[in-house]
Amino acid sequence: MSPGVTRSIAILGGTGPAGTGLALRWVRAGESIIIGSRDAQRAQQVAATIKQKAHAQASVSGMENGAACAASNLLVLTVPFEGQATLLKQLKPAISEGSILVDATVPLAACVGGRASRTLGVWQGSAAQQAAEMVPKGVSVVAAFHNLSAELLSGDAPVDCDVVVCSDDPASAQIVRELARKIPGVRAVDGGKLENSRIVEQMTALLIGLNIRHKGHAGVRITGLPSEAYR
Amino acid sequence: MSPGVTRSIAILGGTGPAGTGLALRWVRAGESIIIGSRDAQRAQQVAATIKQKAHAQASVSGMENGAACAASNLLVLTVPFEGQATLLKQLKPAISEGSILVDATVPLAACVGGRASRTLGVWQGSAAQQAAEMVPKGVSVVAAFHNLSAELLSGDAPVDCDVVVCSDDPASAQIVRELARKIPGVRAVDGGKLENSRIVEQMTALLIGLNIRHKGHAGVRITGLPSEAYR
Repeated sequence: MSPGVTRSIAILGGTGPAGTGLALRWVRAGESIIIGSRDAQRAQQVAATIKQKAHAQASVSGMENGAACAASNLLVLTVPFEGQATLLKQLKPAISEGSILVDATVPLAACVGGRASRTLGVWQGSAAQQAAEMVPKGVSVVAAFHNLSAELLSGDAPVDCDVVVCSDDPASAQIVRELARKIPGVRAVDGGKLENSRIVEQMTALLIGLNIRHKGHAGVRITGLPSEAYR
Repeated sequence: MSPGVTRSIAILGGTGPAGTGLALRWVRAGESIIIGSRDAQRAQQVAATIKQKAHAQASVSGMENGAACAASNLLVLTVPFEGQATLLKQLKPAISEGSILVDATVPLAACVGGRASRTLGVWQGSAAQQAAEMVPKGVSVVAAFHNLSAELLSGDAPVDCDVVVCSDDPASAQIVRELARKIPGVRAVDGGKLENSRIVEQMTALLIGLNIRHKGHAGVRITGLPSEAYR
């Protein structure tokens, strides 16, 4: 871990399927999770459900997003794209310097009434790059977890999917890759710079289209790389 | 096969690494291949090399692109993006109605002096959609084979990669999926409409970036779909 990064992970917008799925897998792996939500009570309810699903000793609590932010410096953003910018503006004062913000946002066209198998163009290139423009100075943005099926995360079986991690800060990217590998079945791949997340985000739309067409829970494996690439 | 589609496959711009790799795998699977090139002599040389690498009975010949086009109605386009539109304009009179044009083009930024790990925006949405706008009426465009490593295709081992096939013509897409499955190791996935190829094309840039970073021959597997999705 980098200095200043605590071991509790705040999942902002963590009451949705992606957030609760990640939380479940991470508490099972022994991580301390804070579920963040607009509504503290809702966050606590979801935390209780996760605890029940995981185990009695699971370390998971629920807080309002701002409080969750203040209580951790490893933040995972799992809101729909339409909520990303507004939430980041609101949380900016609560995000402390040296924090890592993990962005899992995908700019699906569904957020403006279009299809979930199509994406919107984001001026900065990707949702993660938009996030990077909005966080306070000294905060590292890492793009990851876009391609994981929320339904598979909420289950018990290993997840047959790789997580491509993109960031301009290699140390933060490594912390997030370690976090990805705590999900059984998942391999983490160093995807290079944050700008590459625009492709990883798009892939989610393709996978959603495949799910609709074939009634599955599609994921992706990156083949053909030396074993070091998955570390 | 659709009525009127012969079993010989013309690979246009087929003297490059992707074209020769596909040709090698398909002649080994018993297909008749015509290598197309601007230069008929060069095409014949490459055809001879492929024959030598495959087996003495391999059915592979070389022709100028226009002649190759006229001799087949299953056309595979494996030119760099900067050559795609010009070649299609030139070949238009030679492409017969009812043909299938398989587009494997990726709009890499490298074609304007940029990086091969980045892409250009294509007005129509993707290289394949640009092709669809340029072919004569009654010609089906199918996008496929973007993510296969040319180096792995040129070898002997099974290729650890899926081929996502996108087209607005389901019958043509099925023919191309059958063709994909003739490459040992490859599974073909029905990727839906041609417009989805914009994501599949982008994925090539991500894989190239991974290859540069990790010194590999990256490919992609789509997981989590029922077995019918790979047929």
